[in-house]
Amino acid sequence: MQTRQAGVTDAQADERAIRQLVDEWLTASEKGDLTAMLNLLAEDVLFMVPNREPFGRETFAQAYEEMRNVEMKTSSDIQEIKIIGDWAWLRNFLRITFMPPGGEASTHSGYVLTILRKEPGGNWVIARDANLVMPERPTD
Amino acid sequence: MQTRQAGVTDAQADERAIRQLVDEWLTASEKGDLTAMLNLLAEDVLFMVPNREPFGRETFAQAYEEMRNVEMKTSSDIQEIKIIGDWAWLRNFLRITFMPPGGEASTHSGYVLTILRKEPGGNWVIARDANLVMPERPTD
Repeated sequence: MQTRQAGVTDAQADERAIRQLVDEWLTASEKGDLTAMLNLLAEDVLFMVPNREPFGRETFAQAYEEMRNVEMKTSSDIQEIKIIGDWAWLRNFLRITFMPPGGEASTHSGYVLTILRKEPGGNWVIARDANLVMPERPTD
Repeated sequence: MQTRQAGVTDAQADERAIRQLVDEWLTASEKGDLTAMLNLLAEDVLFMVPNREPFGRETFAQAYEEMRNVEMKTSSDIQEIKIIGDWAWLRNFLRITFMPPGGEASTHSGYVLTILRKEPGGNWVIARDANLVMPERPTD
């Protein structure tokens, strides 16, 4: 029983760490803290989004920098987290409102399937991220 | 060394089984063999596609049945497979050409991130599937 208890606690700690990662990611993305975001990414991370080739850290950083003057407001609603040893997957619902200076605000939302990995140091990082966030369509 | 060798062989067998699952899935989808497709899905499978809520087996079956008279030609290019015990993730590139009777053929393509689970019987099934397949845009 002792072992099983310890196992549950580890899984709970991992789940907490992953929820914290999501929070840190969203906070950093609103603040424009690219360094903090990059710290949450695996070296070999791949982002998958509709209509383009998967891309890694450098392209992500470039794209983020190009939006530096766009204010962002984000929210997330974690649907499920599954821990499998040093790996985990996460299904999340994201909503992001972009507020370009002097422009019209636009809201994008959608589900994201993320694969995370625990690094040898014990910190979790994003390894793969399939992002279905799209412009919200007017309700008809 | 014996253990490690056995481990490698197991991982190879799992990878082969997952590649075969992809082949079976595509063959069944071209043939209209819904039963074969459903056999490759976990009971609690969730499909994620842009612009709609995640959906499970029943909605999948319904949507597939509605396209029964549309001929399909599929191809896949598996990018990576990662086995983690009784779980695995797969990154794939899919291209699907739909040929409705008497209508214009249209080709959709994109990347897919799939999470698979090994059932107690030893067979792999699709548990989560984030599908970024979109209509191909004319090259400009």
